[in-house]
Amino acid sequence: MEKKLYHCVAYYPELWDESFIDSDIRYMKQAGINCVRMGEFAWHRMEPRPDEIDISFFVRVADRLHENGIDVIMCTPTPTPPVWLTDGHPERLAVNYEGKRYIHGARQHVCTNNPEMRMRAAIITEAVAKAFAGHPGVIAWQLDNEMKAQTDECMCPECGKRWHEWLRDKYGTVEALNEAWGTEIWSEYYDTFEQVVQPLHTTYPHNSSLQTQYRLFSRQMINEFAFMQAEIIRRYSSAPITHDVHTNFALDAEALFKGLDFTSMNGYTDDNGYCKWLFDFDLYRGMRGDNRFFVTETSPNYSGNLDCMVRHHRPGFVEIEALGAYASGAFGFSYWHFRQHRAGCEQPHGALLTAWNKPSTGFYQVQKVEKLRAAVEPCFTATEFQKPQIAMTYSSEARAYFMTERLLEGEDYSVRMLWLHGIMERRGLRRDILPQTASLEGYKLLFTPFLPHVSDEYADRALEFVRRGGVWLIGPLTGIRTEHHTVSTDCCMGRLEKEAGITAEFFYPMSASGNRLKAFGLEAPACLHGAACTAHEGTEVLGVMTSDITDGFAFLTCRKSGKGHIAVLSALPQIGNAEGEKMLEEIFAYFAHLAGVDDTFTADPGVSVIMRRGEGRYKKVITAINGTDRDGTYLLEFDGTDVITGQSVSAGRRLLGPFGYEVIAVKTD
Amino acid sequence: MEKKLYHCVAYYPELWDESFIDSDIRYMKQAGINCVRMGEFAWHRMEPRPDEIDISFFVRVADRLHENGIDVIMCTPTPTPPVWLTDGHPERLAVNYEGKRYIHGARQHVCTNNPEMRMRAAIITEAVAKAFAGHPGVIAWQLDNEMKAQTDECMCPECGKRWHEWLRDKYGTVEALNEAWGTEIWSEYYDTFEQVVQPLHTTYPHNSSLQTQYRLFSRQMINEFAFMQAEIIRRYSSAPITHDVHTNFALDAEALFKGLDFTSMNGYTDDNGYCKWLFDFDLYRGMRGDNRFFVTETSPNYSGNLDCMVRHHRPGFVEIEALGAYASGAFGFSYWHFRQHRAGCEQPHGALLTAWNKPSTGFYQVQKVEKLRAAVEPCFTATEFQKPQIAMTYSSEARAYFMTERLLEGEDYSVRMLWLHGIMERRGLRRDILPQTASLEGYKLLFTPFLPHVSDEYADRALEFVRRGGVWLIGPLTGIRTEHHTVSTDCCMGRLEKEAGITAEFFYPMSASGNRLKAFGLEAPACLHGAACTAHEGTEVLGVMTSDITDGFAFLTCRKSGKGHIAVLSALPQIGNAEGEKMLEEIFAYFAHLAGVDDTFTADPGVSVIMRRGEGRYKKVITAINGTDRDGTYLLEFDGTDVITGQSVSAGRRLLGPFGYEVIAVKTD
Amino acid sequence: MEKKLYHCVAYYPELWDESFIDSDIRYMKQAGINCVRMGEFAWHRMEPRPDEIDISFFVRVADRLHENGIDVIMCTPTPTPPVWLTDGHPERLAVNYEGKRYIHGARQHVCTNNPEMRMRAAIITEAVAKAFAGHPGVIAWQLDNEMKAQTDECMCPECGKRWHEWLRDKYGTVEALNEAWGTEIWSEYYDTFEQVVQPLHTTYPHNSSLQTQYRLFSRQMINEFAFMQAEIIRRYSSAPITHDVHTNFALDAEALFKGLDFTSMNGYTDDNGYCKWLFDFDLYRGMRGDNRFFVTETSPNYSGNLDCMVRHHRPGFVEIEALGAYASGAFGFSYWHFRQHRAGCEQPHGALLTAWNKPSTGFYQVQKVEKLRAAVEPCFTATEFQKPQIAMTYSSEARAYFMTERLLEGEDYSVRMLWLHGIMERRGLRRDILPQTASLEGYKLLFTPFLPHVSDEYADRALEFVRRGGVWLIGPLTGIRTEHHTVSTDCCMGRLEKEAGITAEFFYPMSASGNRLKAFGLEAPACLHGAACTAHEGTEVLGVMTSDITDGFAFLTCRKSGKGHIAVLSALPQIGNAEGEKMLEEIFAYFAHLAGVDDTFTADPGVSVIMRRGEGRYKKVITAINGTDRDGTYLLEFDGTDVITGQSVSAGRRLLGPFGYEVIAVKTD
Repeated sequence: MEKKLYHCVAYYPELWDESFIDSDIRYMKQAGINCVRMGEFAWHRMEPRPDEIDISFFVRVADRLHENGIDVIMCTPTPTPPVWLTDGHPERLAVNYEGKRYIHGARQHVCTNNPEMRMRAAIITEAVAKAFAGHPGVIAWQLDNEMKAQTDECMCPECGKRWHEWLRDKYGTVEALNEAWGTEIWSEYYDTFEQVVQPLHTTYPHNSSLQTQYRLFSRQMINEFAFMQAEIIRRYSSAPITHDVHTNFALDAEALFKGLDFTSMNGYTDDNGYCKWLFDFDLYRGMRGDNRFFVTETSPNYSGNLDCMVRHHRPGFVEIEALGAYASGAFGFSYWHFRQHRAGCEQPHGALLTAWNKPSTGFYQVQKVEKLRAAVEPCFTATEFQKPQIAMTYSSEARAYFMTERLLEGEDYSVRMLWLHGIMERRGLRRDILPQTASLEGYKLLFTPFLPHVSDEYADRALEFVRRGGVWLIGPLTGIRTEHHTVSTDCCMGRLEKEAGITAEFFYPMSASGNRLKAFGLEAPACLHGAACTAHEGTEVLGVMTSDITDGFAFLTCRKSGKGHIAVLSALPQIGNAEGEKMLEEIFAYFAHLAGVDDTFTADPGVSVIMRRGEGRYKKVITAINGTDRDGTYLLEFDGTDVITGQSVSAGRRLLGPFGYEVIAVKTD
Repeated sequence: MEKKLYHCVAYYPELWDESFIDSDIRYMKQAGINCVRMGEFAWHRMEPRPDEIDISFFVRVADRLHENGIDVIMCTPTPTPPVWLTDGHPERLAVNYEGKRYIHGARQHVCTNNPEMRMRAAIITEAVAKAFAGHPGVIAWQLDNEMKAQTDECMCPECGKRWHEWLRDKYGTVEALNEAWGTEIWSEYYDTFEQVVQPLHTTYPHNSSLQTQYRLFSRQMINEFAFMQAEIIRRYSSAPITHDVHTNFALDAEALFKGLDFTSMNGYTDDNGYCKWLFDFDLYRGMRGDNRFFVTETSPNYSGNLDCMVRHHRPGFVEIEALGAYASGAFGFSYWHFRQHRAGCEQPHGALLTAWNKPSTGFYQVQKVEKLRAAVEPCFTATEFQKPQIAMTYSSEARAYFMTERLLEGEDYSVRMLWLHGIMERRGLRRDILPQTASLEGYKLLFTPFLPHVSDEYADRALEFVRRGGVWLIGPLTGIRTEHHTVSTDCCMGRLEKEAGITAEFFYPMSASGNRLKAFGLEAPACLHGAACTAHEGTEVLGVMTSDITDGFAFLTCRKSGKGHIAVLSALPQIGNAEGEKMLEEIFAYFAHLAGVDDTFTADPGVSVIMRRGEGRYKKVITAINGTDRDGTYLLEFDGTDVITGQSVSAGRRLLGPFGYEVIAVKTD
Repeated sequence: MEKKLYHCVAYYPELWDESFIDSDIRYMKQAGINCVRMGEFAWHRMEPRPDEIDISFFVRVADRLHENGIDVIMCTPTPTPPVWLTDGHPERLAVNYEGKRYIHGARQHVCTNNPEMRMRAAIITEAVAKAFAGHPGVIAWQLDNEMKAQTDECMCPECGKRWHEWLRDKYGTVEALNEAWGTEIWSEYYDTFEQVVQPLHTTYPHNSSLQTQYRLFSRQMINEFAFMQAEIIRRYSSAPITHDVHTNFALDAEALFKGLDFTSMNGYTDDNGYCKWLFDFDLYRGMRGDNRFFVTETSPNYSGNLDCMVRHHRPGFVEIEALGAYASGAFGFSYWHFRQHRAGCEQPHGALLTAWNKPSTGFYQVQKVEKLRAAVEPCFTATEFQKPQIAMTYSSEARAYFMTERLLEGEDYSVRMLWLHGIMERRGLRRDILPQTASLEGYKLLFTPFLPHVSDEYADRALEFVRRGGVWLIGPLTGIRTEHHTVSTDCCMGRLEKEAGITAEFFYPMSASGNRLKAFGLEAPACLHGAACTAHEGTEVLGVMTSDITDGFAFLTCRKSGKGHIAVLSALPQIGNAEGEKMLEEIFAYFAHLAGVDDTFTADPGVSVIMRRGEGRYKKVITAINGTDRDGTYLLEFDGTDVITGQSVSAGRRLLGPFGYEVIAVKTD
């Protein structure tokens, strides 16, 4: 893939007469589209009857696009098997938690663990890969589409078989499984692997280990399905491979992208959702350690489907989405989709063109984005997102744990993480969000919240980071469960307690318990489950509880260790509460300062400052974006030049209008 | 049927000892009941074992009623098949959207498309028809009861077979179906009709065409079931045939009543629901073009069932229900029901008598209604509801479209139509509500809102209406979908755009988008999806948007055409918002004025004025009803005589107390 | 069982290594635990494979406990059958109202009516009974655990068979059933018992008789299952047998405990729930007529499970729970549970010890309870709960009726009863809550609210009570349904009307109907369904309605009868409304006064005064408890001695802090 900023759109030429292509390309050019994504739902067009495969239509389309300077991301069409795959074969259909089989008519209704589905997916994948082998227009591949968006864990008997094999591989003997899961409880005990149930709805919650392991099993299986496709494509093509994910799908995105070649994300939010975008940018940029990602899907104007009407974005929002993405490390930004569907179930979804082939309100937004993209491209391709000094660990596994055990009190893990992220952002603390396995090289502060199971590998790496001078802030709800999703029988937080020089004496639900936390002269109510701790000698207590239950116990400690520090935040100031947010902001600031973090920024809430680094006049480039519909300011610390207008700009407080932005090449000395 | 005002009650003599009949008739007479409806759930009593049929009990009851001057509407008992029909035959039971079969024990649990059910229904229908052939007391027939009240579309395999036949009849070839439905999308494509799924719950919404066509199929099937019964009855009886519907059932009432002989409606609302009654009166009066209808069910005091307790009407409400109905064209008004059930599932439902056979609170309300009915009968039988000059089109098909595609944002079509109706009523604009196929003869203004698919037949008729001088107000959400429930690929609103002299440039969700509409010096936020239009030469722009998205585009236009005008309301002022309601009122008033509408009235909100026309002293009769529990006034334009009291009344502002009313024979010259 | 105050905990030694026992016993002693409950979920540990039974582990544990002075309540392990019982046998699994079978993995997933389950339960019960026959440490038995907590009525075909047999036993002929249930309605009629459906979800509510009878059938079946176990145990042990119930389970607790030897209750509420505790104490103390009960489960600090996090009790709450229980007649108070589960689905539930075997926050609460328990034990074992003069009838059958017919408008019967109870408590009116069959000996006032079906046996006993001088207050919603859950065809309230000297003229939904009740100079809106009555000669009208519907009719009457009075409260002052509560308080006070009730107390709302009676210095013992987190006072009528501190206390208004309490041995003369 070239070093450029891709500006892309999802394209479904198979739904329209081939004669549309010329006009489509003209429209694309008018909108500044330089890349299209296609093929992802076109299995029937490619293979109308079993083994009657013909990809030539898509090759012709790709040829025409390539002739016109438009690149292609080619997709495998596996989310939507044709009716011939399931007609007369209900056993191939996925089954939900209620034990109900889906039917043909939408997507992802087929179980991707079904052997016939696997075989058929392999055949069509190979055909597509072969057809596009060496095609100069194909700059990348996308596998399937939004895996596990609609169906989470499948409960079909075929999955049951694989589940039992997976358990056998993992635990070796059923005795080991019983011991690990503590199945003597409620006489759950299994005599054989084949007896282990799939966690279908029953009279009460299933065993936590069972539930979490089934989630991990399912996540591993769907990745296997993806990797099978990737392996086939690589036989024919050297173009990089990706998949388009969304934070709330039932996936282990970290493991998935480790097996693919670059990271892609989809995101739909209304125009108040800029903070959600920033979170996703930080998350997907860090997913593979390559400091970049691709935005595969967003709406040019509004989203929707037959069941759900969503309001139109206010003008300007799509521009800041795109600028925020490119500045944060995106090398591509893509819309869903080119022309409004005339049929199906997503007619109410916005697109660049209407079903009657005229520019929609989105088209004009896209043209504005293109103007902006073109203006920043020279600068952004000459620079890289400036690596932050703070890392926050994000874990797909943790998300699965919290689905099993609702310690986050009804909210999804990603929503709670978003809240933490927002507080850092508001304080001007730049950060990466990193998967569990990521290198900690180059960071100064590591924050590990909401990680119930801390693997030895992770702990070792974090402790090494501390030894070399890093500050590790642990908690809340971190280290409190084992790898089997049970409670540790050694102590509350496992090995972390000893390392951090604390004892977590009591661990209990603190929400509305009257507990108030005190630190840095501030006070705030506690929330969620938390631990009341005592500090070992040499451990500093930074925050204590005032509580009828655990008065005077510590909730925030810090201990020198090697050249660095290990800190524990064992209870959380209340979410969505002004006192709580203020305290958490101070906690973050304290540890950032302790860690020597010096790449912070100053801005009003909702205004973000994104930094890039390069050479010469682009040594330091500031992108300031107002994600709100009110005026907002930030502090430009040095004079500079506006990259878009070319005008000189003086250091000082800078005003940005609603959804306003500017990109400043800063004179750093 | 005689020219009188029927005062009727649902009667279940089969549930009580035959010795009750004499006392029942005495009570009926005391309450002024002159007609009873019976038989609708009595299949078991009529046919306790297959083919052991004995209708004689009901004939005896009818004889006794007739001897006492009480007429009978005789029903077929098909909503409640005896257990012998389904015992051992689960395949005859209906299946819901979740794929679950119902069981014996309630009603409508049997699939009316099941061949055995069809055959058995025919047999019992014929037996009843034969038994009452020529019976002098039977003035009318009712088929079944509240078809599709509890079960909407059935998903049983038997329905699947009929569905495939229906599709074959409609589309001829599966290729035609695929093309019409755009099934290349998501590889939905069907190779045979037999593969086409029933829209059972799956991972995402089904194809819009599939969903809507299944709804239309189901509506046609249940009508077939009704027509089969009607055809049998007609072999034996010339009494007119009806069925009792409710606006929220899964029916095509228009097509149903076209095949029957008069229109009947059921309605239950609490005592704040007078506006809902008025809407239904207008709707069912216009359903067959015969300017009349029958109210088959309402509660004399309160409704309810085992699962649902409903509060008692305040006194006076039943009187205005009845008067409003009779004045609006009802020739009968019937209660549900005579004596409280001692058993079953509707014991908490009000009735005239209690289960211990004493007058209930409802009995006394009914006596008051009778007094009123008797007082107005000479006047109302000598007059007819005065045909309004405004017609609003109501479409069962449109309702099905909006069930598939939630463009009405979560509300049922009938609720949105009720809101539009209420604004006309508040402005004193008299109107008929007409089915799509109704003649437009005699109207001055035609309003066509929320009609996604406008058939050529309808458009032709409306355009002819315009040519002859009518004003046609189109929209919102009208003409935006094809007959297959897809989006037009020609333009947003199909042929309507050219006829109306506009181009709908952009069509998008306007709710909360910041769009504000301006017209007639008023301003209001827009809601729902709407179109931003440009006007062709010769088209007047009456309203424009102020919007960040589509600033300055038109939402209200009017074009002279032939002797009339075609106007388009392409976006809707916000529902439930004072500004929006005010603007819509002005829009209606403007076009009513433009059309020369001159039969308006002036009244406080909640007070309705219903006009009837006759000869001589009843040339013009005004019925004024206060549907609220506050005082309200209306303007009596001429002196007149109070039909109930006989007293003279002077023109001027007239005060009506809570739930107050008066009927004035007006001196028009 | 000894005359002492048991302080108990649920113990699951089978989940931990046997080496834990010594340390566990030490912890128990530190916490003051003198009794443990064990075995209830340990079926697999006891019988890992069919017929391989070994109870010796539990015997060893019991030996060790006994050696250490800790008693044992031994349980049968039947709520959690091992996987070998259901593997390959889905027909043994319970089926819910949706027709869905549960699966292995939680508890109560097996149908207790399944013959194999019955047989297997009998075998394991006998094995346990045999193993502990004559064991000196086993002071009592518990059958199963929380029967019908998770699964209510089972709908499996096996239950269907028993259902048909049960109906045959009850009704003799299917004709009798049809007549009793009124099945001619909606042609529900059954030709054979085998046709009678189980009330699985269908298109509308099932017949009320069917629904209620199925509930009663199910309640009788589960009791049969319990009695089968009890019968087996009694062959081997003379220790008393109990079962632990909760008010909201699908049980007939009255019939259950009649067949067992003492009453036990579980209760979990947050720390605002003291009034709920009081209600349960009153209810379970009266269940068997032995003036005592056992609290088998409550949380020492907080409850919870994987799906549900519950906040921590504020300190002090567990002490008032325990003191309230002991004072109210509990001879045991037990926590759930000893050590936090490391696995399963209840890790988030509080316990005395953490999973890592350290004292939790609960442990210290339990130590405080122990201090208190030890202090009051001499006094409480020398006294008995002082029998109140007021009895309120509570009926499991009534609860089933109101599940079928939602006359309580969405709330459970027990919640409505709690509300009535709370008003008596607030007025200082001491009361027992009695089952329908309880003796009325010694009471002065009997209150019979919400009892739709009044059996002749009950009415006879109540009337005898009246003849001897008692006051019987009937209603609301009492006597309005027959034993088959139909409406009486004689009159609204059956024989009660004649006895009470009233006619219930109208019975209808009064909520929000505008009805206002007037009595004792007070006024309040009516709620729920109620009757508007006329009084026969000699019946005094104490309260009348002002209503547009039934103005001037009586809702509160009283008639002298024998030496006593029969009063009817035919309509209810509004629940949750200050006027309504005030009026109801006055009504209670009036009849208490009329009945000569003289054991009342005076206290602030939320402060309860519990009286015990003994000899000598413990002739009269007052326990005053503040169930709120605010200060509260009560009136101590005599001087006395504080039982806990030994200090003298003077009569007068006494202040109790939040969750405060005191126990005073009163000098009554």
